[in-house]
This record gives sequence, C-alpha cells and structure tokens, in this order.
Amino acid sequence: MDSLIRDPPRLLAVSYGLSQPVNVFCVAATRYIMAPMITVHHLETSRSQRVLWLLEEMQVPYEIKRYQRDPKTRLAPAALKAVHPLGKSPVITDGDETIAESGAILEYLVERYGNQAPAELAHLQPAPGTPAYRQSRFWMHYAEGSLMNWLVMKLVFMTIPKQPMPFFVRPIARQICGNVQAKLVDPNLATALAFMEDHLKTHAWFSGEHISIADFQMSFAVEAALARYANGGNFPRLAAYQARMVARPAYQRGIAKGGPVVMS
Amino acid sequence: MDSLIRDPPRLLAVSYGLSQPVNVFCVAATRYIMAPMITVHHLETSRSQRVLWLLEEMQVPYEIKRYQRDPKTRLAPAALKAVHPLGKSPVITDGDETIAESGAILEYLVERYGNQAPAELAHLQPAPGTPAYRQSRFWMHYAEGSLMNWLVMKLVFMTIPKQPMPFFVRPIARQICGNVQAKLVDPNLATALAFMEDHLKTHAWFSGEHISIADFQMSFAVEAALARYANGGNFPRLAAYQARMVARPAYQRGIAKGGPVVMS
Repeated sequence: MDSLIRDPPRLLAVSYGLSQPVNVFCVAATRYIMAPMITVHHLETSRSQRVLWLLEEMQVPYEIKRYQRDPKTRLAPAALKAVHPLGKSPVITDGDETIAESGAILEYLVERYGNQAPAELAHLQPAPGTPAYRQSRFWMHYAEGSLMNWLVMKLVFMTIPKQPMPFFVRPIARQICGNVQAKLVDPNLATALAFMEDHLKTHAWFSGEHISIADFQMSFAVEAALARYANGGNFPRLAAYQARMVARPAYQRGIAKGGPVVMS
Repeated sequence: MDSLIRDPPRLLAVSYGLSQPVNVFCVAATRYIMAPMITVHHLETSRSQRVLWLLEEMQVPYEIKRYQRDPKTRLAPAALKAVHPLGKSPVITDGDETIAESGAILEYLVERYGNQAPAELAHLQPAPGTPAYRQSRFWMHYAEGSLMNWLVMKLVFMTIPKQPMPFFVRPIARQICGNVQAKLVDPNLATALAFMEDHLKTHAWFSGEHISIADFQMSFAVEAALARYANGGNFPRLAAYQARMVARPAYQRGIAKGGPVVMS
C-alpha cells in the first residue's frame, strides 16, 4: 500500500479499477489533495499563529506538528533544533525546503501559493510602486525589527522579579526592572503604539484598504502589545483592528488548530 | 543664485551663456549631479552605517544630515522625530519619500538604484527562485527580527549595573543582570553565532558567493556581535567575514563620512 501512496497514478488506477495509470493532471490534483506538502512546526503561544492564519486564509493544505514550551522556563523545546539549527518557531517545511523566520516564511508562502488564494486576498502582496507596497514593506520589517524587540524586552523585565530569588533581593529586582521599563521600554512602546494608532486612522489594514502580507506579520505584535502594554481603551483603533482580525473565520480556524496566541 | 539652483535648465543656460533653458535630458543629468535627492538622517554609532555603505557601493549620490546621541542617555535626539514620528535612525528621504526601518530602506534603494550599481553588485537582489534568493530573504529578516533583539538585550543588561544607584544595590543589580545574560541572552547568542559561523563555512557572503542586500542588513549585527559577545578568536569565519567587509573601499568611505559603527 505504501508504494501505491507514493505513486498516485497507479493508486488512482487501482482504486477505480482502471487498466492504466491516470493522466498527469489527476496526479497533480491527487498529490495536492492527499498529502499536504507543508508542515508547520508549531510552538504553542508563539509567532507561529500568524503562519496558520495565512495558510487558512489562502486555503492551502498543511499539517501541524506541535511543540510544547518547557513548563518551567517557557522556552522552546530542544526538539525544534532537529528541524532548524536555531531551534525556534515558526519554521515550516515544504517538500525539501525548510524555511525559518516569520517574515521569510510569509513572503515564501505568498510568492509560492498567493495565486491560489481567494479573490479577497488579491492584494496580499501589493503591486510594486504603489503606496500600499511601500506601507507593506515598512510594516513587514517594523513588526519584528523594531516593535517586537520592545515587547520581548517588556516581557523579560516583567518576568525577572517573579523568578525564584532570596526575599530581600526581590524588592530591589522589582525596582531595577521597574526603572528600566519606565525609562527605556515604556517610552518606546508609547511612541510605537501612538504611531500605529495614528496610522490606523487612515488605513483599515496596515498597507491600506486591503488585507496584505503585512497584517499577518503585524498580527502577533498587535496582540502582544495589547496584552502586555496597553489596554484597548487607550488605543481604540488598534483594539478595533485586533477585533476585525480576530473575527475573521480563517483566523479562528488557525486558533482552533494552534491554540491561543499570547502567553498568559 | 538660490532660485537658479532650483531651476537647472535656466542655471545651465546662464552658466553657458545660452539664450534658452537646456533640454530635459540635461535637466535630469544636472539634477542628478548637482543635487543629491537622497538625504540620510544619520545617527552616530547606529544602524545607519549600513545605509551609507550601500550608497557608497552603488555610487549613488546622497547627503548626510548628522544627529548626535544624548551624551547621558545615549538615546537618539528628539530632532529625529521631525523626520519620522518614530524618531529613529536610519531614516532617509528621497525627494518626497520618507523611508524608515533598515530592511525597508535597503530594499527601496536596491529596487530604485540597483540597476545603476557597478557590475560587481549585479547580485544585490538575487534572482527569484535561486538558493541565493532564499538565503537573502532569510538573512534580511533574521538580522533585525532575531539576532539584533538578543544583541540589544545584551547591551541593556551590560549597561544596567553601570547606572547610578546606591552602592549596596549595585552588587545585586550585577547579579541579576549576570543571571539573565547567563540563562537567557548568552545561550541564544551562542546558538546564533555558531549558526552564522557554520553558514560562513560554505558561503563567502550571506547569500552565497556574491555580495547581496543581505550583507548590508547583516553588517551591523555582525559588528555588534563581535564587539559585545564574542571575540573573533572563537568565530574565525565570522571575524574573516567582518575583515572582508571592512576592507572594502566603499565601506571605508562610509565610515569616513559616518564615523564608527558600534558604541564603545
């Protein structure tokens, strides 16, 4: 049976009692239906959710291989290093290709499968030279290149004082971490969130009126920002953006398969 | 005279004693020679150096507007907020366009001016579908999306114990920051540097045998990594890569104009 699965023309022929293997179009169609080529190596509560959301929107078949964080350290498990030497999530495999780094994965998927996506996603990669294209390029880099940097740092400085330590050290740890947040992290996050809030005054999605690749790249950062730094009340447009994103059926299918996005 | 400079056809006519403004081709050529359209808003010891290096390699004219860090906090000055609301460097203006975020700036410059670059830079943007293209895409996102995150955090945790604080707090600050580096930051940097070192075994430049846009994006991270985390002795290929980059005349012209790259 195994050898039949690897030989769809013969498999189809056998299944339907035909005397000859079926034609090439059927082979392609069968491959597509029977064996998703894409595997998302999915770490719980991670940037991986943006990849699931994109695949669900594009209606591209994929399978998920799940990884749990270490219950104590909350870090990614060593098993991910077998997939890619950096041992991080997200990482996908597509046939023989292994692709790491959120931005690179999204760009690969849009380039490779974007033309199969539903019509609503026609602007996933905006046309070169348009304002949407320039916006998309900026937010593709800004999400992880600037914004997430501050959000990860926020998480680290929130977490340090909760670690095991002698009781007389904890108040000092709390004070040091509070200072760094107040002087360095929070002012940068305040600027970043005000900047995004302002942008969303005139843009329904990050690139403009249509959903684009930049929204998938920004999604995790928006959720982390609203969870770690701001409540929606201060940033109504950002909160409305998140609500619009979360309401999408494809986003919800991603959550149903991958679990919640942000560490609680 | 000012109004003449803004009107190259008339300026040329006046300069050469002609009775009529000169033709459109001359106008374009004169604009190009006389008035660089690109302004690099350059913050000392910052990611801005990678932009100067690229412009020097491509031999595209530009002018520099300089910004100094606050002598106490080492943060970017408020004046940068007048250029772009995030108030960060690098940011460039090109005619009416303002472009922020390193990766977006490099991509813009290569797309817009890459075809004017010397022949050696023919692979600045590798051809789609090639291994060099996949490598380039990965490193374009990895540099700031992952690697710099850890390098900035390293700098922050190295800096905290040096801040003014009561004498009895300092040893505790040193211990807390040392712990975070040992448990979180340094293991991630060790993995990252080993990964790059391994990659450079089989790649002269980050995308492959030719210099590409990814090298400009990675340059600052490589210099920061060697300065903050590793001495070249442990990572001979990374050190050799840095030496190869620094030896390039265009790189040196960038340094001569912009000053040193990494904060000392």
